[in-house]
Amino acid sequence: MPNEGSFEASLKRSNAIRADFAENPGKYRMLTGDRPTGRLHLGHYFGSIMHRVQMQNAGIDSMVLIADYQVITDRDTTANIQDNVYNMVMDYIAAGIDPEKTVIYTHSAVPACNQLMLPFLSLVTEAELLRNPTVKAEMEASGHELTGLLLTYPVHQACDILFCKANVVPVGKDQLPHIEVTRKIARTFNNRYGQVFPEPEGILSDAIEIPGLDGRKMSKSYGNSIMLGATEEETAKLIKKSKTDGERRITFDRENRPGVSALLTTAALCTGRTEIEIAEEIGDAGAGALKKYVTESVNAFLAPHRERRRELERDLDYIKDVLHEGNKRANEIANATLDEVREAMGMVY
Amino acid sequence: MPNEGSFEASLKRSNAIRADFAENPGKYRMLTGDRPTGRLHLGHYFGSIMHRVQMQNAGIDSMVLIADYQVITDRDTTANIQDNVYNMVMDYIAAGIDPEKTVIYTHSAVPACNQLMLPFLSLVTEAELLRNPTVKAEMEASGHELTGLLLTYPVHQACDILFCKANVVPVGKDQLPHIEVTRKIARTFNNRYGQVFPEPEGILSDAIEIPGLDGRKMSKSYGNSIMLGATEEETAKLIKKSKTDGERRITFDRENRPGVSALLTTAALCTGRTEIEIAEEIGDAGAGALKKYVTESVNAFLAPHRERRRELERDLDYIKDVLHEGNKRANEIANATLDEVREAMGMVY
Repeated sequence: MPNEGSFEASLKRSNAIRADFAENPGKYRMLTGDRPTGRLHLGHYFGSIMHRVQMQNAGIDSMVLIADYQVITDRDTTANIQDNVYNMVMDYIAAGIDPEKTVIYTHSAVPACNQLMLPFLSLVTEAELLRNPTVKAEMEASGHELTGLLLTYPVHQACDILFCKANVVPVGKDQLPHIEVTRKIARTFNNRYGQVFPEPEGILSDAIEIPGLDGRKMSKSYGNSIMLGATEEETAKLIKKSKTDGERRITFDRENRPGVSALLTTAALCTGRTEIEIAEEIGDAGAGALKKYVTESVNAFLAPHRERRRELERDLDYIKDVLHEGNKRANEIANATLDEVREAMGMVY
Repeated sequence: MPNEGSFEASLKRSNAIRADFAENPGKYRMLTGDRPTGRLHLGHYFGSIMHRVQMQNAGIDSMVLIADYQVITDRDTTANIQDNVYNMVMDYIAAGIDPEKTVIYTHSAVPACNQLMLPFLSLVTEAELLRNPTVKAEMEASGHELTGLLLTYPVHQACDILFCKANVVPVGKDQLPHIEVTRKIARTFNNRYGQVFPEPEGILSDAIEIPGLDGRKMSKSYGNSIMLGATEEETAKLIKKSKTDGERRITFDRENRPGVSALLTTAALCTGRTEIEIAEEIGDAGAGALKKYVTESVNAFLAPHRERRRELERDLDYIKDVLHEGNKRANEIANATLDEVREAMGMVY
């Protein structure tokens, strides 16, 4: 975690930029992405995808990276990766990411982006790599020995951001140290070899984190997540078996009633109402009535998404075309940047 | 340094392969290369380039890498790199490396080779990177903070060797630990994702190391090196000011007479005679006569090299063509391998 002083400074810069988005969307390029380790869920939607769609539609040049190599930072297999990638593209498009406006591409398809690893690794020290708190935390959480790929994770992230000269990157507070590494790499490169890269800013969202159905963080491994692409029946079943408590009257109290409150938040996000309003409406009707309301709210909210998704599932050729086009565009951008890097470093023969 | 047991095993495998070169040259692809940090000298010639030319002419498929990114493992600048690269190609060709037979290419021009960094970094642990003795030694020798690029040096070396599926790599004894990392990366990749890479062998040469004119290792920074491309006058001047000792009679005694012995070894290599024979011939004529003999021997030996080199200096377009062709060929090889890697990892979309 950054210290509060630097966090406050980052937040201030982030707010100033967000305020400028509507005025000057053409000044920005956004880079964001996901690891294709499974299906996207409501937490991804409200936490990031919704914001990407808003930024895209505000006219901000957008790049969405499917970070397939990041799958192996902390695991020994790439099983199901193709299927995960295709499904991710379906959810993106169903959620409103428009491949005509946003470049959707995969990490492994862009060699010139990945080549930046070599010059960029020369701009960080061993000590800086070992100091990164997020890398350590992720390693401990994975129960996996620290791989060279996870150790150098902040450097690939710098490649991913800088290859397309993105200047805004939506992040959570805990990812700010990575952005700092990227900024330092950009600054050191520019000082040493000449101006090529912007120093990107982390854009902190004020979205509340949507809890999983048990009140913990929504995570596939907890089985507490409502998948965007699930059927109405699967959604109903998952909500039905979610854990509430013995108290009949429904009230919103995150700390003492995590299950009930998570259900209320889920319904609130899907309906645009507040948790308290919904709780009062359900009142003494109990957890069964609450679950019924949540199920209906979620399924109604996701109905258009799921309908578009089912159409996309029937047209895998279109999904492949989207990736081919996105990868082609990402390669054009990467090759142009790598040419500038070679020029700046004098590696032109 | 490897332990003696594993060194003996490596030496045995190396000798068996060298014995097989004449019989089955088509079974082998050799990868070798240099950092373009300055001009090549007699130590490079007798220590490696001569052997490359022999292997090339024996019909072994040869790749010679000009490792431009390795220049920044331990320095903050790429000053003069273009000039160093062009001059390296001139010395290669003048020394007998034939661009029609050997692929001469630069590291920075082959993105698909460099992309292998990402999957390969996932196959080594932080502990393995930190344990590497050569990395630590090079870092201490450079007096430079350990960069991420030097820390991950054995992994780029694995990329350089494996991208072209080289199975033989000429090395010094101290480089065997790097080859072990490459072998482990190849083995782990093949086990995890399916057979793609050979496990390369380090080929240990029995060449004696040619000393610098002061008896220390020949190194540009010691000013004790005879450059292949120097003029006859520069060569004469350098040999003239080399340090000998007060004893008039010339004898070969590496330990007690490093300067005189280094001169004798230099002349021996350039004439094909033995040091003792030369020493006896000079006898009481003293250091002046020895230096005269060494100067004549070196200049006679290098005369054809220098003549070819002067022709090449006048034709920079040809040097550029050699690099363009070599880089094109290296990219074809790298792209084909990367396609296999993506296929094996399921990253085909």
